[in-house]
Amino acid sequence: MKLTAQQVEDLIHLGFAAKKKMLGIEEVRPGFVRTRLPYRDSMLRPGNVLSGPALFTAADLTMYALVLSHVGPEMMAVTANFNMNFLSKAKPGDIIGEGKMLKLGRRLAVMETLLYSSAEPETLVAHVTGSYALPVKS
Amino acid sequence: MKLTAQQVEDLIHLGFAAKKKMLGIEEVRPGFVRTRLPYRDSMLRPGNVLSGPALFTAADLTMYALVLSHVGPEMMAVTANFNMNFLSKAKPGDIIGEGKMLKLGRRLAVMETLLYSSAEPETLVAHVTGSYALPVKS
Amino acid sequence: MKLTAQQVEDLIHLGFAAKKKMLGIEEVRPGFVRTRLPYRDSMLRPGNVLSGPALFTAADLTMYALVLSHVGPEMMAVTANFNMNFLSKAKPGDIIGEGKMLKLGRRLAVMETLLYSSAEPETLVAHVTGSYALPVKS
Amino acid sequence: MKLTAQQVEDLIHLGFAAKKKMLGIEEVRPGFVRTRLPYRDSMLRPGNVLSGPALFTAADLTMYALVLSHVGPEMMAVTANFNMNFLSKAKPGDIIGEGKMLKLGRRLAVMETLLYSSAEPETLVAHVTGSYALPVKS
Repeated sequence: MKLTAQQVEDLIHLGFAAKKKMLGIEEVRPGFVRTRLPYRDSMLRPGNVLSGPALFTAADLTMYALVLSHVGPEMMAVTANFNMNFLSKAKPGDIIGEGKMLKLGRRLAVMETLLYSSAEPETLVAHVTGSYALPVKS
Repeated sequence: MKLTAQQVEDLIHLGFAAKKKMLGIEEVRPGFVRTRLPYRDSMLRPGNVLSGPALFTAADLTMYALVLSHVGPEMMAVTANFNMNFLSKAKPGDIIGEGKMLKLGRRLAVMETLLYSSAEPETLVAHVTGSYALPVKS
Repeated sequence: MKLTAQQVEDLIHLGFAAKKKMLGIEEVRPGFVRTRLPYRDSMLRPGNVLSGPALFTAADLTMYALVLSHVGPEMMAVTANFNMNFLSKAKPGDIIGEGKMLKLGRRLAVMETLLYSSAEPETLVAHVTGSYALPVKS
Repeated sequence: MKLTAQQVEDLIHLGFAAKKKMLGIEEVRPGFVRTRLPYRDSMLRPGNVLSGPALFTAADLTMYALVLSHVGPEMMAVTANFNMNFLSKAKPGDIIGEGKMLKLGRRLAVMETLLYSSAEPETLVAHVTGSYALPVKS
């Protein structure tokens, strides 16, 4: 690993100039990261479930954290493709993300992320695959 | 069309209990909708470009508006699959969405959405396809 | 399970009126299926690697087998969305598919499939997610 | 354009060492290509409709032709992501592909392809987006 969980958490906090803790990094190991996006009321949508944008945010940050922990503080990795299948309505709670590296190439990192709500931790809420374009080294 | 642009705009405003205008519906016709998500500073991410969650929100609301205008006020249509390709960095501005119905079946609506920033209206920022599960009629 | 591995294999063989064994079903259990698409020279593309259409076939049949084994001989389930990330070049060999049910709803089954070549069984060749529309029961 | 329709057709024919004409290239212009995959009986699946693998082949070759015509005979461009929405059953016929370049970057080409059957040319059969990784220039 190029970075620890704490270093990834700090980098994301700094990068977004966040006032509050943005994303908790709970575990980092080769090929894997577990994250927690703290619940806020603004995450809800009509029907009192976690909104699509909140789930998108959790998945995107999880994959960003996974890239960071594997390639180091290359802040310029950018999302290229993002594919999400919505599986269950998500009860209000922190969003738990489990990110898995499928391929770490020179130009592209391909990842999978599973999302859960802390209010119902056994229920898979969404399945995401995404690819990030990596900056070319000079 | 089951609903006018104004009716769709009002339904989304009501559904999200929004204080400010949520999403402008600029055009509605068979198979097509054009929307405008007003710019707010909270849409920016590091690098001063429109964030992934903001683009996701614009695309998701555009497809929701497209379904609403075609099937009527069925507020229970839910996103099933969402696939986004990020094409260009988006300069700060309103997000313009052009939604096109690819298939309106009994169980599933499949749509395409193109996203632009009003700050650079010629540049395609993201391409999205999505499917919504339609409520079964009883 | 509604069907055994042998029953699924027979149904696919019959459905496609195949002369040779079409797809081997190696394991069936709740939420999971393992398949083997036998190697043929026609699966190769320039560069001597397994072709995209061959990988597509393996993934699509794997998800079809997974649906069949869970819902019974409903031959009318049809692919709605198919998303594939190509991860590594695949050496010539049988294509091994591991299918996992992510959600089995009333209208839609959402699945994930991992593909490997028997010539290099440790290397993930492609990651697929797909959804199938299920026939409405009358 | 780097290549004419005829040159693209010849390159694909040569690359696949095809005995029969593989893919017709009917039109090539900046950002666009129209192709025709000739009908063969092996393209059918149960129900007498064009199969998923046949549609995949048509879409993949269309996007390959689109890349070739824009970047020249770089035979090493490889599919990275492929997302297909199946919209209508396709009656037996040639598969017509309309490919559109969404973004031609240095590392990635992102494209959209619409598929039709010549037996019912007004009906959109499938919508595809795909990205190809481009070889790094040395």
